[in-house]
Amino acid sequence: MSREQQFIDRLKPLARDPGARGLIDDAAVLAVGNETLVLTHDMLVEGVHYLPADPPADVAWKLVAVNLSDLAAKGAVPVAALMGYTLGPDADWDAAFVAGLGAALGAFALPLLGGDTVTMPQGRALGLTAIGRATGPVPSRGGVQAGDQLWVTGRIGAARLGLAIAKGMAEGPEEWLTAYRRPMPRLAWGQALGPRVHAMADVSDGLLIDARRMAAASGLGVTIALETVPIVGDDALAAVTAGDDYELLFAAPPGFAPPSDCIATLIGGFAPGEGLRLTRDGAAIALPARLGYEHD
Amino acid sequence: MSREQQFIDRLKPLARDPGARGLIDDAAVLAVGNETLVLTHDMLVEGVHYLPADPPADVAWKLVAVNLSDLAAKGAVPVAALMGYTLGPDADWDAAFVAGLGAALGAFALPLLGGDTVTMPQGRALGLTAIGRATGPVPSRGGVQAGDQLWVTGRIGAARLGLAIAKGMAEGPEEWLTAYRRPMPRLAWGQALGPRVHAMADVSDGLLIDARRMAAASGLGVTIALETVPIVGDDALAAVTAGDDYELLFAAPPGFAPPSDCIATLIGGFAPGEGLRLTRDGAAIALPARLGYEHD
Repeated sequence: MSREQQFIDRLKPLARDPGARGLIDDAAVLAVGNETLVLTHDMLVEGVHYLPADPPADVAWKLVAVNLSDLAAKGAVPVAALMGYTLGPDADWDAAFVAGLGAALGAFALPLLGGDTVTMPQGRALGLTAIGRATGPVPSRGGVQAGDQLWVTGRIGAARLGLAIAKGMAEGPEEWLTAYRRPMPRLAWGQALGPRVHAMADVSDGLLIDARRMAAASGLGVTIALETVPIVGDDALAAVTAGDDYELLFAAPPGFAPPSDCIATLIGGFAPGEGLRLTRDGAAIALPARLGYEHD
Repeated sequence: MSREQQFIDRLKPLARDPGARGLIDDAAVLAVGNETLVLTHDMLVEGVHYLPADPPADVAWKLVAVNLSDLAAKGAVPVAALMGYTLGPDADWDAAFVAGLGAALGAFALPLLGGDTVTMPQGRALGLTAIGRATGPVPSRGGVQAGDQLWVTGRIGAARLGLAIAKGMAEGPEEWLTAYRRPMPRLAWGQALGPRVHAMADVSDGLLIDARRMAAASGLGVTIALETVPIVGDDALAAVTAGDDYELLFAAPPGFAPPSDCIATLIGGFAPGEGLRLTRDGAAIALPARLGYEHD
């Protein structure tokens, strides 16, 4: 078990409020008067979640986008953000970050309400709290019912190819690099899907690992038909084990039809049992050694 | 101007929502349905906001307490928290932190709803978002009116003496060390005062600097009668320029009487003009070179 998971397991007894959803969901829920808020806080650490050479404006975009992706996965409408920022020794980096932050906040019409700015001698750890308003029932990661089908929005794998470009290890179209550096949270699709699906999560760590987590949280097993997964590039196994795509993964009963303006593909199904099975053209295939980003 | 202040000034154009209060207040406000939420996010960085040798359980306490002190200064009732945690190489430290976090959450009946746990190769930057519910009008830092008087709750200076003990530079009663390591946010007093005062803030960086900020945010000058400030220890100037006390500083019109269960002392007043004046027994005295923790 990864150290992050061990730590989260230690925290679970402290997070008994039902709104914490057992710390297994993308976000928490909080009833306020007659509204339901959806709350998330994600961090980006230099050298862990982004490359030190990534443009600071793109890091700012990503900080906003990864948090809004959590809101998208809960069908929520973003309403506000608070940021925790660690000032580094490079003032130009900080200035470029603010410019990118302004672009991201503007693109998503997200008001920045406050936060904290602190000096940090070494390294950077950036945090954003995003607050959204629920548009209806808030789907959890663990709401799948046996017999539900597994869907994914958009296409998977572009961010992986973009990361290779950013590392100077590959070449490819600009849109791959953009997919890595400026992911687009699926807010509109999430809001349309949220109240209508049984479970939803974003694909942040890799399609396989995120699908397995959804199944585990629901006490079920999941089977994915690899050839049905819409991918970018030609290496399906690499695509479904890479992270940072920020598409939406959701479970819905047979016969479910996504809203007409939502691009979503049926890629598998859930059944009693546990774990993840992968098939190609109907035959079971071996799971790759690494299902995604494991937080270890 | 400190680098932190420069960065905050860069952020201000991105925080135009009235709920951001121009990024000069302890916390932000957000109207949700028929409720008003108060939101804050404060970080603690190892070596900056706490000593590497401080017990991890106390660091956890402080992370909760400094955020709840911001809510106290706005008269808010805490309702939930999200934590951003950077895992370090020392698993025992992390485990002891969780134990202290549980104690703090329990002491303040604060539900932990979620957050993020990330690996950080070097250093620690811990963030907490605290969400509170307003009990009435939410006092800002900048609401002082000319002629208002300046009050402070409790006594000032114990945390400074406790820090000296923690550093092995002094000896003294256990309560001083506790004041430094386990500050108590003035939640009940804040809730009683909040709807009745013109302005309020907590004393986190030092009485003099926090009073000057309140005056500046209100477009006024402030005079403090040093001999009236209730201090711990015998060095008044050291006490009023040290931070970490987490008492409440507030402005109220002449004739204001604090609630009977609130220990508060009248220490000065506001007048047209700008800046901070310090008097002792009626005579102006020179300001110390350093008014408090300057974030630089």
